[in-house]
Amino acid sequence: MTSLTLNTEADVATLTEQICNIESVSGNENLLANALEETLRSTGHLEVIRDADALVARTNLGHSKRVVIAGHIDTVPVADNLPVSRRNLDGVDVLWGRGTVDMKAGVAVALKLAVEIPGPNVDVTWVFYDHEEVDAALNGLGRIARNNPQLLESNFAILCEPSSAQVEGGCNGTMRVEVRTAGVKAHSARPWMGKNAIHSLAEVLTRLAANSPAEVEVDGLVYRESLNAVLIDGGIASNVIPDAAKVTVNYRFAPSKSADEAFSYLQEFFAGFEVALIDVAEGARPGLDLPEAAAFVAATGSTAMPKYGWTDVARFSALGIPAVNFGPGDPNKAHADDENVPIEQIFACESALRNWLTN
Amino acid sequence: MTSLTLNTEADVATLTEQICNIESVSGNENLLANALEETLRSTGHLEVIRDADALVARTNLGHSKRVVIAGHIDTVPVADNLPVSRRNLDGVDVLWGRGTVDMKAGVAVALKLAVEIPGPNVDVTWVFYDHEEVDAALNGLGRIARNNPQLLESNFAILCEPSSAQVEGGCNGTMRVEVRTAGVKAHSARPWMGKNAIHSLAEVLTRLAANSPAEVEVDGLVYRESLNAVLIDGGIASNVIPDAAKVTVNYRFAPSKSADEAFSYLQEFFAGFEVALIDVAEGARPGLDLPEAAAFVAATGSTAMPKYGWTDVARFSALGIPAVNFGPGDPNKAHADDENVPIEQIFACESALRNWLTN
Repeated sequence: MTSLTLNTEADVATLTEQICNIESVSGNENLLANALEETLRSTGHLEVIRDADALVARTNLGHSKRVVIAGHIDTVPVADNLPVSRRNLDGVDVLWGRGTVDMKAGVAVALKLAVEIPGPNVDVTWVFYDHEEVDAALNGLGRIARNNPQLLESNFAILCEPSSAQVEGGCNGTMRVEVRTAGVKAHSARPWMGKNAIHSLAEVLTRLAANSPAEVEVDGLVYRESLNAVLIDGGIASNVIPDAAKVTVNYRFAPSKSADEAFSYLQEFFAGFEVALIDVAEGARPGLDLPEAAAFVAATGSTAMPKYGWTDVARFSALGIPAVNFGPGDPNKAHADDENVPIEQIFACESALRNWLTN
Repeated sequence: MTSLTLNTEADVATLTEQICNIESVSGNENLLANALEETLRSTGHLEVIRDADALVARTNLGHSKRVVIAGHIDTVPVADNLPVSRRNLDGVDVLWGRGTVDMKAGVAVALKLAVEIPGPNVDVTWVFYDHEEVDAALNGLGRIARNNPQLLESNFAILCEPSSAQVEGGCNGTMRVEVRTAGVKAHSARPWMGKNAIHSLAEVLTRLAANSPAEVEVDGLVYRESLNAVLIDGGIASNVIPDAAKVTVNYRFAPSKSADEAFSYLQEFFAGFEVALIDVAEGARPGLDLPEAAAFVAATGSTAMPKYGWTDVARFSALGIPAVNFGPGDPNKAHADDENVPIEQIFACESALRNWLTN
């Protein structure tokens, strides 16, 4: 087994640099997974299970409660931004480079605490997984949930996705539909012999442009929904009246709604038009009304906010486990060429999680 | 020179079959041009000028008036519909196959009369040209108009394009513009951070759908204008709020309007939006108020109608020569897989032109 050694005695920012500098674009996680496995096994206080390039490492202390703390170890492709550099941006010290935000700073926090806290006040299952940034069918957390769901059994889950070191609860669901119109082809010199399918989209776009999406309270958090045309396409040639056109619409819906409820809403919203479901992923309730979650929010001293982007917390939600996002970095910097994380946020997350697990 | 012999003593329907069966998809007109040249030269009463695969053949009788009678000899690609067959469709005898409508029946009429009328009552310039069905820059008539415009000098022109054996005067102009909207990209989970360029097209499509195009009288014919979206395009990915979208609009405008006037109209129609000119071809006035044209309409016994599709009559119009379309076949069957021409219409066109040239 080829492996590099990670020095977990370094501070968590330095550990973030080490992890970022082991390039692990989706599909190339092996070397980093090896390094993590060696580090986790060497602690002596964790049961370590390897699953392809994912790792599950857990304490078995007999506590009545168990939490999962998870992070993916892959990144999107490098944009000439490795190795990581330290920079000062408008007075803020940052780590600059691929993975610093999404989400190796979160992975570094989890790894350091996994090593340094042999006796947490709840049992902890640390999960480090592969293939989050690509086709959902490859997702390492999804694979474990399918094949070995007992490994994820817990009362509460924390996903160390970037959330600016604040607790972001649950996530909206996301649905894509195509709204389609039909017409009759004709030569554009004699359009009255046809029917223009693009003109028929006027009403579809008018409804979208006029729409004010709902705000929906779920478990104490207010989720802002949204409904947007993301793609539009129609026409065959510049001298033909088009007989078909379509708008692809993305609906982000509150986690209190099921996929069926979301689709019914869209069918009603676009009444009079053909609406075809393309794909859907239900959201995740934040579960902040549960004692474990409330205690975590209190321990971090943060004000919980709703998460708008769909994340793997929904996979925990699907297993009946409330889950929140909590990690360093601004999610708007994820995947960006100027991806960078404020160092202060890495330390803040480490400190909050350490306090919660040890006090 | 490889050549096939055309038998112009056959009736004009049979001559149409002969011409259709010499396949001459644009770029492959050489063999047919050779056959036409040999036929025209053999008459002895015509001055014949060859220009690439176009032919100009004219009488020089010293008449005070000259007319051009023209047709293109190329076709769109064959659709397994050659050789031509004779069929009976709902009681109508037709020639079925590529080129029968667009426009070898018209070419056959012209060729037969060029051969059989050595002493017409006006001087006649017969034009047979290449490359009409492809990029306008290759058009054989356009090439002659650019390089040897004196060959087209005349008082009146007849283009034997299919017009159901009725006189169709002039043609509408055609303009394409792109109406473009701009927005601000954002992740579709947080659309309020962006601006949706597709939603901004709602107003553009609403104006188009609500529009009732004008009818404009020009030289005694009423031209129906039209304004249609023919292509629509926008968006980058299904999780990104689109920052750009556009509609390609085709405006068919009356031949009394210049390109500048047409563009000004569109700028006003789409006020508030970016309107970019893609291309334009001005129309052709029918000139039916001119004595030559009026006499021709009377001789054919037809009621003149406006032509909606853009045709090469506009090239004559640009040279200051009034021009009409007059040929056998329904223009809606041009390019169709079931392209076919009623035989009766071929004889009707032959007879009308013969009477006009000889009485």
